[in-house]
Amino acid sequence: MITTDILIIGAGPTGLFAVFEAGLLQLKCHLIDALPQAGGQCSEIYPKKPIYDIPGFPEVLAGDLVDNLMEQIKSFSPGFTLGERAQTIEKQENGSFIVTTNKGTKHQAPVVAIAGGLGSFEPRKPLLENLKKYEDNGIAYIIKDPEVYRDTKVLIAGGGDSALDWSIFLSDVASEVTLVHRRKEFRGALDSVEKVQSLKNQGKIRLITPGEVTALEGDKKLEAVTVRKNTTAVEDMRIQVDHFIPLFGLSPKLGPIADWELEIEKNAIKVNTFDYQTNVPGIYAIGDVNTYPGKLKLILCGFHEATLMCQSAYQRIHPDKKYVMKYTTVGGVIGFDGSKKEAPKAVVKAID
Amino acid sequence: MITTDILIIGAGPTGLFAVFEAGLLQLKCHLIDALPQAGGQCSEIYPKKPIYDIPGFPEVLAGDLVDNLMEQIKSFSPGFTLGERAQTIEKQENGSFIVTTNKGTKHQAPVVAIAGGLGSFEPRKPLLENLKKYEDNGIAYIIKDPEVYRDTKVLIAGGGDSALDWSIFLSDVASEVTLVHRRKEFRGALDSVEKVQSLKNQGKIRLITPGEVTALEGDKKLEAVTVRKNTTAVEDMRIQVDHFIPLFGLSPKLGPIADWELEIEKNAIKVNTFDYQTNVPGIYAIGDVNTYPGKLKLILCGFHEATLMCQSAYQRIHPDKKYVMKYTTVGGVIGFDGSKKEAPKAVVKAID
Ligand SMILES: Cc1cc2nc3c(=O)[nH]c(=O)nc-3n(C[C@H](O)[C@H](O)[C@H](O)COP(=O)(O)OP(=O)(O)OC[C@H]3O[C@@H](n4cnc5c(N)ncnc54)[C@H](O)[C@@H]3O)c2cc1C
Ligand SMILES: Cc1cc2nc3c(=O)[nH]c(=O)nc-3n(C[C@H](O)[C@H](O)[C@H](O)COP(=O)(O)OP(=O)(O)OC[C@H]3O[C@@H](n4cnc5c(N)ncnc54)[C@H](O)[C@@H]3O)c2cc1C
Repeated sequence: MITTDILIIGAGPTGLFAVFEAGLLQLKCHLIDALPQAGGQCSEIYPKKPIYDIPGFPEVLAGDLVDNLMEQIKSFSPGFTLGERAQTIEKQENGSFIVTTNKGTKHQAPVVAIAGGLGSFEPRKPLLENLKKYEDNGIAYIIKDPEVYRDTKVLIAGGGDSALDWSIFLSDVASEVTLVHRRKEFRGALDSVEKVQSLKNQGKIRLITPGEVTALEGDKKLEAVTVRKNTTAVEDMRIQVDHFIPLFGLSPKLGPIADWELEIEKNAIKVNTFDYQTNVPGIYAIGDVNTYPGKLKLILCGFHEATLMCQSAYQRIHPDKKYVMKYTTVGGVIGFDGSKKEAPKAVVKAID
Repeated sequence: MITTDILIIGAGPTGLFAVFEAGLLQLKCHLIDALPQAGGQCSEIYPKKPIYDIPGFPEVLAGDLVDNLMEQIKSFSPGFTLGERAQTIEKQENGSFIVTTNKGTKHQAPVVAIAGGLGSFEPRKPLLENLKKYEDNGIAYIIKDPEVYRDTKVLIAGGGDSALDWSIFLSDVASEVTLVHRRKEFRGALDSVEKVQSLKNQGKIRLITPGEVTALEGDKKLEAVTVRKNTTAVEDMRIQVDHFIPLFGLSPKLGPIADWELEIEKNAIKVNTFDYQTNVPGIYAIGDVNTYPGKLKLILCGFHEATLMCQSAYQRIHPDKKYVMKYTTVGGVIGFDGSKKEAPKAVVKAID
């Protein structure tokens, strides 16, 4: 059982910044995310694109914003359960909550902050017989650790940035990379498309377009796939593979959280605007996942919501203490790792 | 008469960021501030100190944050009325407002956003006979344009960072700099104190401590001051000066805004939390100047409030239009100066 002060569901920008604000109040956080990495939409959908409306950044790449947030919270040593979906929540007698993931990992905390964005990112899957049989057994929809593919035969399907970028990356790792897409045209950053063209020309990526995977084969694990090439004549090719990675995009689903008996409106969780608490005391919702009058689904709004939420969480966790807010400039930042950042102090010094 | 879409009172971080959010909605802004420069508390009180809780900045100097905000709003070409205090507000028949400053400058706009922080920064003044007579006539409390002091005789009074820093700066500009402080000890950044010590040793700054200015003289303009040196024996010195600059700090006063018939609570303006509007429709209050349940006087909260305020202002200014929010990453930023920033577009391109 993982225990913490604030359990945050969703490690997007809102959830990450909540760790910082909680840390200032000396509260510890643990984050759960269905994705294998932190950053939510910023990391998963547009890491290399610029955002222009983060206050103080005339321009910042979404991926860099996430890196900066990770750096900002580092000294508060948050815990992470990545690649797992928060599935169920149970309230305990003592008022705390237990949240269990789809893989059975249990987490206990007196406060739960749902920072689930548009929902847990779930892969779009191809419609193929026996798909389930090979999942985690030759088929993966998300690449968690590229080393798994070293010196193996990999077949990637898809026509967007993920398919392009992972084909490029794995062409240096795997013994064989095949890229299958149902069109000749790919959609992505110009330099990624050009890089795949050149790797194909060098024989480092085998390209099959237009084509699609139509069947899976293998005894205990995946051993081969059938690719139907759709040129003038239809042609079925049997290709030996160790791994098949369909990268058809991830789509967010509010999913299990919709069953947590929270008030839902427009596919979002209703909260008040003074501490962003839901109808269940002790469960808060911050960032894209919540709704209230005037709500805007913007990153900078999630930051504000996370901050007010932490003040309220503090009161809940320490009902007998009174927290007096100190500016970071004045009080500094005292990490759980023993580090301390503080502004240089003014001196009082005579001039003779 | 200056006319604009949103008239912002207070050019602190909140007011500045409001210009950006308004600009995204193609609304123009004009800012009034009592200080001679933008940035509010960040520029006036702690420009060289680090802030640690601006999301995405593990550490940023308050002055740099202001510079970044100025850069971020540049393409929306905001107007500024600096060094003047917004004094009165009148509602026009057509629903718009006219705001007049203490210097008589008039501004008209359909929406007024008060981002006045803790209030208009007003200088603490010495208690001296005939002070008023010499104000703007040899006496200044704020240095607007250092060139005014070139090759003149300047006497600065004060013992903090402003007195230290301006003595250092003007020692290169003025023909003579005298620094008077009622103690021998100064309070400020170590390197400023040391720099003044070294300039004094070089004879570039004349230091009189402990001492204080006790009288002013001059026919039409200030010509000399009397400085009483309080060592073992009291000694009165008459010093010829062109300028006397008492730098005893600025203190914020809600001031005239308190009389604008807005609901006030705890020295702040009451607003709702969906668009941060006051009890007077069309007048909003954002940042440190407002209050609502859960309110925190933090910079990041002002950013959020400014953003929601602008959406509501848009509806007020364009009651017949429906604004559909676009992410900056997707829609880019189109400046009023003709500039356009946008994310590199994905291509759709065949790989052969
Ligand atoms: C193309 C694009 C451009 C954008 N441009 C801008 C912009 O310019 N400015 C701006 O402010 N915003 C922009 N946005 C929106 C911005 O990315 C979101 O507002 C922001 O990501 C919301 O942050 P969040 O932390 O609330 O949620 P998210 O970033 O959505 O993160 C939520 C996380 O929670 C996880 N999660 C959800 N449910 C569960 C569960 N049950 N178990 C485990 N994990 C779960 C998800 O997997 C996800 O990682 C853009 C979005 C897109 C797609
Ligand atoms: C030493 C110190 C350290 C701080 N550290 C932090 C920190 O670490 N993190 C954080 O988030 N915050 C911190 N703060 C607080 C932060 O500076 C404020 O929250 C922020 O400046 C508020 O911004 P604002 O734009 O709302 O108001 P302000 O910055 O106060 O700006 C308001 C402006 O309005 C002007 N004004 C008011 N009335 C009038 C009028 N009638 N006419 C003309 N002009 C007028 C004033 O002159 C002023 O320039 C700190 C403050 C101080 C003093």
